[in-house]
Amino acid sequence: MATIEDLERRLRALEGREAIRELIARYAYEVDCGEPPDWASVFSEDIEMEAGKLGTSRGLAEIERRFTRAEHLDAIREGSQHAYSNVVVDLDVDGDHATAWGYACVHVRRGGEWRVHTLGVNRWRLRREDGAWKFVERQRREVGEGDWRRLIDARRG
Amino acid sequence: MATIEDLERRLRALEGREAIRELIARYAYEVDCGEPPDWASVFSEDIEMEAGKLGTSRGLAEIERRFTRAEHLDAIREGSQHAYSNVVVDLDVDGDHATAWGYACVHVRRGGEWRVHTLGVNRWRLRREDGAWKFVERQRREVGEGDWRRLIDARRG
Amino acid sequence: MATIEDLERRLRALEGREAIRELIARYAYEVDCGEPPDWASVFSEDIEMEAGKLGTSRGLAEIERRFTRAEHLDAIREGSQHAYSNVVVDLDVDGDHATAWGYACVHVRRGGEWRVHTLGVNRWRLRREDGAWKFVERQRREVGEGDWRRLIDARRG
Repeated sequence: MATIEDLERRLRALEGREAIRELIARYAYEVDCGEPPDWASVFSEDIEMEAGKLGTSRGLAEIERRFTRAEHLDAIREGSQHAYSNVVVDLDVDGDHATAWGYACVHVRRGGEWRVHTLGVNRWRLRREDGAWKFVERQRREVGEGDWRRLIDARRG
Repeated sequence: MATIEDLERRLRALEGREAIRELIARYAYEVDCGEPPDWASVFSEDIEMEAGKLGTSRGLAEIERRFTRAEHLDAIREGSQHAYSNVVVDLDVDGDHATAWGYACVHVRRGGEWRVHTLGVNRWRLRREDGAWKFVERQRREVGEGDWRRLIDARRG
Repeated sequence: MATIEDLERRLRALEGREAIRELIARYAYEVDCGEPPDWASVFSEDIEMEAGKLGTSRGLAEIERRFTRAEHLDAIREGSQHAYSNVVVDLDVDGDHATAWGYACVHVRRGGEWRVHTLGVNRWRLRREDGAWKFVERQRREVGEGDWRRLIDARRG
């Protein structure tokens, strides 16, 4: 028979996966709605983010610089929507580290019309800090470009 | 050590969040597939819905009128798909009230071609009635329009 | 008061629903990223898949033939993204069979531009085999075409 300890561990795993999906949603809210975004609420201080042509940003200050580039601000000026789907979460056995995968569909507005800005695939590494999950690493690729399949291989069959 | 009562409370919270995400999905099924939609299965009798230019609809009869406007029926005539993403759910401590947030990406068909109809942000207030979650309030804004950020501020950082 | 057996049964149901949503995500990863896709990791050996004009494919060999048609390979040649949303899962009381519903939004790339390829509605029947959920039946319809509403009627109001 299952013990209370077993059930608590399984419950904690479900709660962790739920919290991580919420974090991904809140990242979207920050990038789309935040003025300025509160990056410390979603990224750890030692975040490493690598997203295609822009290369790697390390730490919150570099993340902030990345998202205040004129090119980025101009792209989302009229409104953007970062929609995540197909999110898969693997928790480490310690319960305080995890890896997640998911797709992004980003629309931006141009002259009142919506158009697809990017369709991406993401792999996030996460850590629980004082009870709250944060991203510690993010890799992003445009679907169909270069080595994008490599990002998701670990979560196939 | 956790008690059975603790675990049951945490389990009930996870089940509630799951049921609310399903309700949001079933709303989409009703609006896209229902002829006529069964609004009483998703909205409470005292529903208040406010969605941009159309103003506020109060109660099921006004909801029904809203969704039988010629403009709405014409928009979805060839087919529509309401896809929700980034759903976040906060349960009240009593377990019978909740607030949820999420994005919508609505495509409609025109002459056999799909096009983006609206990209919205939603905030729903919910109540559990006889065991079933229902929407009691819904606010919707088009992404990028007016005070849309205000809707989601409570669920940022 | 709830017993440990009650809690374990409810926990197992939540874990099952989670595993099924992950399976749907992994199907997307296989079709978009797999070279060749590992269909045995998502479909049972006796899979029956029916998706509109192409009719029904029975068994893994027919599934493989279906997805290696020149028409399919050409459509996804520059990259594709299968994004699922509004997923609803009903578990049978035995806990080893389930039915799920969900929307698909499929984008493909053409000359570097993204465009909507299909917007579909899916109904999946699933079975747990040696602990892993697999699809045993899939029906897919294009939103707005023919009897597409029939697929989703069982999960409305």
